[in-house]
Amino acid sequence: MDEREGVWIPVRLSAFQVDFLQDNAVTDAPADTRPRPLEGLKVIDLTRALAGPYATLLLAGLGATVIKVEDPRGGDLARENSPYVGRDGVSVERRHEDDLSISHLTRARGKYGVSLNLKHPKAREVFADLARDADIVVENFTSGTADRLGVGYAAAKAANPGIIYCSLSGFGAGVSEGSKAMDVLIQALSGAMYTSGGPDDPPVRIGVPMADMLAPVFGVIGVLAALEQRRRTGQGQQVDVSMLGALTSFVAIENWQAMALAGMEARTGLTVQRLSPFGVFRCADGYVSIVAVHEGLARGLFKAMENEALGEDPRFATRDRRVANAKVLEALIEAWSSQLPTDEVVRRLEAQGVPAAPVRHPAEGLHDPRVLARGETMPITHPAYTRDDGLLTSGVPIQFSEGRTGFDQVLPVAVGQHNATIYRELLGYSDEQVEALAQAGAI
Amino acid sequence: MDEREGVWIPVRLSAFQVDFLQDNAVTDAPADTRPRPLEGLKVIDLTRALAGPYATLLLAGLGATVIKVEDPRGGDLARENSPYVGRDGVSVERRHEDDLSISHLTRARGKYGVSLNLKHPKAREVFADLARDADIVVENFTSGTADRLGVGYAAAKAANPGIIYCSLSGFGAGVSEGSKAMDVLIQALSGAMYTSGGPDDPPVRIGVPMADMLAPVFGVIGVLAALEQRRRTGQGQQVDVSMLGALTSFVAIENWQAMALAGMEARTGLTVQRLSPFGVFRCADGYVSIVAVHEGLARGLFKAMENEALGEDPRFATRDRRVANAKVLEALIEAWSSQLPTDEVVRRLEAQGVPAAPVRHPAEGLHDPRVLARGETMPITHPAYTRDDGLLTSGVPIQFSEGRTGFDQVLPVAVGQHNATIYRELLGYSDEQVEALAQAGAI
Repeated sequence: MDEREGVWIPVRLSAFQVDFLQDNAVTDAPADTRPRPLEGLKVIDLTRALAGPYATLLLAGLGATVIKVEDPRGGDLARENSPYVGRDGVSVERRHEDDLSISHLTRARGKYGVSLNLKHPKAREVFADLARDADIVVENFTSGTADRLGVGYAAAKAANPGIIYCSLSGFGAGVSEGSKAMDVLIQALSGAMYTSGGPDDPPVRIGVPMADMLAPVFGVIGVLAALEQRRRTGQGQQVDVSMLGALTSFVAIENWQAMALAGMEARTGLTVQRLSPFGVFRCADGYVSIVAVHEGLARGLFKAMENEALGEDPRFATRDRRVANAKVLEALIEAWSSQLPTDEVVRRLEAQGVPAAPVRHPAEGLHDPRVLARGETMPITHPAYTRDDGLLTSGVPIQFSEGRTGFDQVLPVAVGQHNATIYRELLGYSDEQVEALAQAGAI
Repeated sequence: MDEREGVWIPVRLSAFQVDFLQDNAVTDAPADTRPRPLEGLKVIDLTRALAGPYATLLLAGLGATVIKVEDPRGGDLARENSPYVGRDGVSVERRHEDDLSISHLTRARGKYGVSLNLKHPKAREVFADLARDADIVVENFTSGTADRLGVGYAAAKAANPGIIYCSLSGFGAGVSEGSKAMDVLIQALSGAMYTSGGPDDPPVRIGVPMADMLAPVFGVIGVLAALEQRRRTGQGQQVDVSMLGALTSFVAIENWQAMALAGMEARTGLTVQRLSPFGVFRCADGYVSIVAVHEGLARGLFKAMENEALGEDPRFATRDRRVANAKVLEALIEAWSSQLPTDEVVRRLEAQGVPAAPVRHPAEGLHDPRVLARGETMPITHPAYTRDDGLLTSGVPIQFSEGRTGFDQVLPVAVGQHNATIYRELLGYSDEQVEALAQAGAI
């Protein structure tokens, strides 16, 4: 999608030649005319893969102008992630030249794309020009790489002392990581894999890439906090978040050591017997999550089970007794729930005021109308095709009473898609300069 | 720990009578004299349990002054969470009156505590005075409750049009939730429970309370973005984050539907066969996480296995062949790794440049020296006792080059601990007013 195909330009970007570009813009700008909270901020996005791009995706969704910088010799590797989407729908392998990796389609939403070969001698100057014009830089190279390429914090600060430079890495800026900062390794090191499952179970690889996702979330908090500090001091700074630290800090909120010291089992699988009845129980066609930790709730559960006598049974008459006899009680609950459809179990529990919810698959969870209505998940389609494969992806899960979130209708389909817009219109390079950089292989 | 026992007062809080209080302060202020990014901002904290208090904990660690408001008739229910810590160490049950719930000890760090009975007729006026003096209010009542109590956004805004009012709830502000916004139910609804495990496995209850933790993280992003918008407009606003939306947006980053449409299995357990060899493998004394998706890494793995011939085996000679024969390959890897200690497996793989990591238990992960050095986890002790039980908890996983993070040595051990500091020194109430409020049961 380049200018010829229609790009929605945020009108607050006064540095852009708005009139010219708007003549070619598609007209599906959202009806919500509230500003986005971060409008007016510019982000130079050196990131690739998932952790970094998710940080700049959040900034874009909050209204910042994000300029994604990609190597002209192929761009972000996420462009090669299977599956793809295109004129014929979703496929494991790329079938048409304009098929797009769904990873790229979702993570590059609302971002402008320029090409820049960071190893080219001319790149440092172009990067300095980009940084001079910007508020924020985000990178997630292996620790030390950005400095080596001459696009680290020192270079950005030399061009713009107010710049806020966010580095996401495996173990922290300046901490050697080799090639090891991958989500599945960080999950292993952090202890996160041993938080799920039962006492004798193997570890559990968590299907949500938590390390890849948490580092950028804390990176965004760091960037916004640094903006607040800059308001007082006028100075920028480096913000440095590690995948291991972000995930381990999350794991550390539970009292793992204290529970061990107190002789309490922390890995308890689908249920938690010290809170019994609490956890996930099998139904005829799925599973249900139930919380009945307090007296009234336990009575409600027994009523839903049409077995109110359990409340008088000496094994289950008090909370302490229920905890002491948790296994027996859990077996009784499952003997009941496993005979009924999940929806019916939930209905009967809710009728008694007992908190319960069906365990849904992601596809069903993503379609929850409450979630869709708030833009917490949102549809995504290939920009060139109206074909709707029903794909949903992440939105920005924050509502503002006086602002909106959302993504501009702009996407770097090709590497360097918006070179003209950014290098000419934003940085003021001449046609000859842009041409010379392209000829030299710098962009 | 009240003033008599030593409180470290942030000296930038000019509204406080710093001199008076500092006379009684302990002198263990950190050597790092850089400012914290959010210094000067004041937060009224109406939260309880985990989601809300984690949001204000992050704000406190970033330098904001947080005033935790608790019901004088017992305070935050997290004060009753087992296990406890005290003069005799960690225990399942409270053994001494001054034993503290570790949940409260970790979540209330760096916060001032006042008592206020929100159902008392005088409470609205006190709340208005608090809001008038503050920048931010955070609450995580059941949706609608804050408004009903007269401490909702409308009340805060009437007192202070610049206030940023953050509401964390199960399904969103104004969306009915009954009593159902608990982490284990939100995990079920979001699809998160079906992201882990294998295709025929039951769902997996994730041991990290992801819904409780993600809503506050996005709440903090929303608050800081709203501060940025306030800088432009002068106006505050409500920030509204739902637990279901925050977690579902995280789940939605993976291409669940696209994988289903493309016929790719999403629930693959400990390994991912389409990336084979990739995932978690058993060792003699634990488990190892291995990433050997590319040609060079696979060859390195075979070398580490002292079986380089596997690289010439037609079943494993190319990436496509390895994926096609993933189960056989995984069995061969595990036949090797299960004979060796985890550390030895990791050592041999690293020697060949293959990304690998031991799967560690949380207690070990929390003690990683890289993580401790960056304050991503940090020690915690009962404020009255020097006894060190080796407990670690979450820090703020963000480094700033020109700022620091960390918690003031202040904690509401008792409900209303800092009533004098806050009501008298900060709001300017007279001794008589404070006494009258206390007598009336309002504070």
